[in-house]
Amino acid sequence: MSEPAESAPLTLVALLHGPDQRGLVARAAGWIFERGGNILHADQHRDEDEGIFFQRIEWVPPAGAKPATEEKAFLAYARDELKMNAVVTDSAHRPRVVLFVSKADHCFHDLVLRWRAGEFPCEIVGVVSNHRDLAAAARGYGLTFHHLPIAPGGKAAGEARQLALLRKLKADVVVLARYMQVLSAEFLGEFGRPVINIHHSFMPAFAGGRPYHQAHERGVKLIGATAHYATAVLDDGPIIHQDVTRVTHRHGVQALIQKGRDLEKLVLAQALRWHLENRVLVYGRKTVIFD
Amino acid sequence: MSEPAESAPLTLVALLHGPDQRGLVARAAGWIFERGGNILHADQHRDEDEGIFFQRIEWVPPAGAKPATEEKAFLAYARDELKMNAVVTDSAHRPRVVLFVSKADHCFHDLVLRWRAGEFPCEIVGVVSNHRDLAAAARGYGLTFHHLPIAPGGKAAGEARQLALLRKLKADVVVLARYMQVLSAEFLGEFGRPVINIHHSFMPAFAGGRPYHQAHERGVKLIGATAHYATAVLDDGPIIHQDVTRVTHRHGVQALIQKGRDLEKLVLAQALRWHLENRVLVYGRKTVIFD
Amino acid sequence: MSEPAESAPLTLVALLHGPDQRGLVARAAGWIFERGGNILHADQHRDEDEGIFFQRIEWVPPAGAKPATEEKAFLAYARDELKMNAVVTDSAHRPRVVLFVSKADHCFHDLVLRWRAGEFPCEIVGVVSNHRDLAAAARGYGLTFHHLPIAPGGKAAGEARQLALLRKLKADVVVLARYMQVLSAEFLGEFGRPVINIHHSFMPAFAGGRPYHQAHERGVKLIGATAHYATAVLDDGPIIHQDVTRVTHRHGVQALIQKGRDLEKLVLAQALRWHLENRVLVYGRKTVIFD
Amino acid sequence: MSEPAESAPLTLVALLHGPDQRGLVARAAGWIFERGGNILHADQHRDEDEGIFFQRIEWVPPAGAKPATEEKAFLAYARDELKMNAVVTDSAHRPRVVLFVSKADHCFHDLVLRWRAGEFPCEIVGVVSNHRDLAAAARGYGLTFHHLPIAPGGKAAGEARQLALLRKLKADVVVLARYMQVLSAEFLGEFGRPVINIHHSFMPAFAGGRPYHQAHERGVKLIGATAHYATAVLDDGPIIHQDVTRVTHRHGVQALIQKGRDLEKLVLAQALRWHLENRVLVYGRKTVIFD
Repeated sequence: MSEPAESAPLTLVALLHGPDQRGLVARAAGWIFERGGNILHADQHRDEDEGIFFQRIEWVPPAGAKPATEEKAFLAYARDELKMNAVVTDSAHRPRVVLFVSKADHCFHDLVLRWRAGEFPCEIVGVVSNHRDLAAAARGYGLTFHHLPIAPGGKAAGEARQLALLRKLKADVVVLARYMQVLSAEFLGEFGRPVINIHHSFMPAFAGGRPYHQAHERGVKLIGATAHYATAVLDDGPIIHQDVTRVTHRHGVQALIQKGRDLEKLVLAQALRWHLENRVLVYGRKTVIFD
Repeated sequence: MSEPAESAPLTLVALLHGPDQRGLVARAAGWIFERGGNILHADQHRDEDEGIFFQRIEWVPPAGAKPATEEKAFLAYARDELKMNAVVTDSAHRPRVVLFVSKADHCFHDLVLRWRAGEFPCEIVGVVSNHRDLAAAARGYGLTFHHLPIAPGGKAAGEARQLALLRKLKADVVVLARYMQVLSAEFLGEFGRPVINIHHSFMPAFAGGRPYHQAHERGVKLIGATAHYATAVLDDGPIIHQDVTRVTHRHGVQALIQKGRDLEKLVLAQALRWHLENRVLVYGRKTVIFD
Repeated sequence: MSEPAESAPLTLVALLHGPDQRGLVARAAGWIFERGGNILHADQHRDEDEGIFFQRIEWVPPAGAKPATEEKAFLAYARDELKMNAVVTDSAHRPRVVLFVSKADHCFHDLVLRWRAGEFPCEIVGVVSNHRDLAAAARGYGLTFHHLPIAPGGKAAGEARQLALLRKLKADVVVLARYMQVLSAEFLGEFGRPVINIHHSFMPAFAGGRPYHQAHERGVKLIGATAHYATAVLDDGPIIHQDVTRVTHRHGVQALIQKGRDLEKLVLAQALRWHLENRVLVYGRKTVIFD
Repeated sequence: MSEPAESAPLTLVALLHGPDQRGLVARAAGWIFERGGNILHADQHRDEDEGIFFQRIEWVPPAGAKPATEEKAFLAYARDELKMNAVVTDSAHRPRVVLFVSKADHCFHDLVLRWRAGEFPCEIVGVVSNHRDLAAAARGYGLTFHHLPIAPGGKAAGEARQLALLRKLKADVVVLARYMQVLSAEFLGEFGRPVINIHHSFMPAFAGGRPYHQAHERGVKLIGATAHYATAVLDDGPIIHQDVTRVTHRHGVQALIQKGRDLEKLVLAQALRWHLENRVLVYGRKTVIFD
């Protein structure tokens, strides 16, 4: 977590990855320096087994330069000279987030209150639900609530309506804040942008439905929560963050559910924060977190 | 944490403490059994150094018996026969809680949302503040907001108004949810009931003001929060709950404050839950928590 | 964890479980009291779903009474009057523990050093291994080392030799301190006493072989260790204790293995301590831990 | 924690700090690159309040170059061009560590066993104690044990003997593994090299003597351990690592001491590992840990 800056200058953040080569740190840093920029942070990671280099660089662009120009120039340099995959964003950009919810409201309130407290550099541009339960709460926060029910046998039609709405809202990210429907591979492919989910177990243990019931049945001594990117394979996407808390035989299923809520809130909020701060680099089924 | 019971029968909870004697467990249990009650839980602790016995017993009173009658009968037995200090409450009793707040809203929202979700067996009967910042939020939750400013030099007058309000509200417990005024020993003595405070450090480290600044200055690697009963000596009362989280040199004071908020919420909520479930027994500067 | 008593009086510990009935707490406590005993601790648990009552009682027997007589009398009372399954042990009894090891030595050293420091109320009566690597270390501690190799295709013969040795050593408990052979269902049935294993993952995630490799492959953010009783189904026995530690993308498999060693040591030691203090009650695939 | 490399190439590690200036990341990286080196890791930190820049760079020197030549060249560049304080070490260098112990042996065994398992890139060149208790254990590990008692009133003379021994042993680091004498400011000044201590509390809480007794008296719900560099002011030096563990009212002082041992071992071992891997940069009363 970086220090939230009160009157922070505009910065650019690049996430790079690609085949490892000698001199990548020096070359990327040198390019920025020579152009007049000032690097604030530069973290790297090498996956020795795979020979892949990962880097996050955050820098202040040259005085007077247009951020968009610098972004394009860096992207071209990264692609053409460094032969790296790159994404560049500037700190003034606030991604448009849509929350998907069902009936449970704990993650919903938690995310919205953190957003209003300034923890998340984003805009929450809508709340989508297959139920009406959270309509009033959403409106109480001044958020637009979209009731898009999924009729039995009507998943394809429901998802089409969701996709149309996401396009209209120009959504950059979807957060599944205890949304209890599985999104189809078609939906994810069509949307084509990150979808962050919170699963209420320590994945890969207890994937699938009713994980607290499964955990209680097995007699585990810790329960967990896992925030991950949704992929076409259910509960199998790249893990962003996980945490656990201790339970005992005295905790029945309802107590696990109650204790689990705190985990779910903290884990999902941290994952979203990292995502929005451009600290998460996905490769294959894994993530690199530059925290 | 006990399992929240959905259609739980009415139970009685007794908290006992006093000089240790042979047979206390058997005698208390035997009295309840012979009267027709059924013990659900009975936890004890002995302080070997001090020779003090502590016990929490939770039981279902005899079918057809009036809870108030059973409470009185047990109290008389505990006092006269066991020679123990005792408090007895029944599970239908919902203490009347008043929240004191200032400007920070994270603990306030957290407590109210948990209360609405059914986590706390109490009534929140009012919100008191020396500032107006949280008036709209309180009213949004349907809570009565009382703005009682403390003028410079007007602490005695301000506390008198607070005490009058607490009497009127029939408050059983006051929770200082990041209330930034020190309550005088006179106030605490006059109120005469529990006041639960959240201090934003791992007490006894960094008592007093600006604990996150102190922690940053000292370069600690963990920050903490401590929920305790307020006593006449500032930041010195019996500790109910504490927790910590890891920080690094990358966290400036503002980041400590942000990370600390999550700790404060969790620690205060747990302390209040234990208090309301009659799981906290205070003796001297310490607590016994029957969790 | 109880306070290690320096000149503690002899105590008896009973572990009871069976169908729940009204008055169990009072009746067990009353029996002990009337006989002249003094209860130090009495913890219970009710499994509401299954209607099972669990209790651990620790008491000082009547002055002058023979512990063995009291044990038998309590067992008869529990069985005949309370209709409960019961085990009673006295604090002077030191179970005879045999350590099974292979090549890894971290759990081995940890357990032996804790034992020598007085943490475990037991006798370590031998070290068994399918390799010779730890022979010198065992002898350096004054322990007898038994090299019982398992030849390819010779598992049945090898286990027969192990069982003969365990009988000769009068083993009460076997601890698999990173022993890398799977014990057969026949072995476990024949031995008929507790076998405690440490599995190097957060079970049920990553059961089976090479769990750190599996964890690295999946990209989890926490690794774990699980101490459990060995049963006929591999990595499926009742869990006694679990813990986890945080890892990042920077930890390769070797780093996971190194970090995991500390977890394994702590989790196995805690599980063995609870077992030896008669704090673990097994039922079905689960445990109740009276800590 | 970095991945322990089995056949790792020789690397150089530089720790730099000094006034922040534009281009420091690029210039240091560029110098190494142009000389033919390859940067493996480069982590920085800026203390925004103080305007200080901190960096750790790890690189493979140019093929065929002498490490000592590269070290000197980088030091000269850092000092003369970057105007930074710098320390450079190479991965083949194994610092000479002397352990100071008294009677408690848990940290001693833990450190030696980890060292023998290859966790610490150092040589343990001697064990110094004011008591004879650990003489046999040290010799059992093949370590030289030096009994240097401190007579009442003889601290100055005792420290003079210790200093003479440290000079003779060419000690680079002293680790106080539960050594129960306070080292004087004169000793520390004269030795002039790092002395790492483990304090058995969560500093700054419970500095001074008998911290577990203080913690028990205060009724805290967590106990801690702190590894720090010893300075002239007792229990006030820069903190390297801290951790805590949960305790309850059931834990008496002896139980705190027993639980605390595990914390002390883990915290001291981690601090020493970071120190030996050149991951700790001290400034003022604080540390920057490049982990």
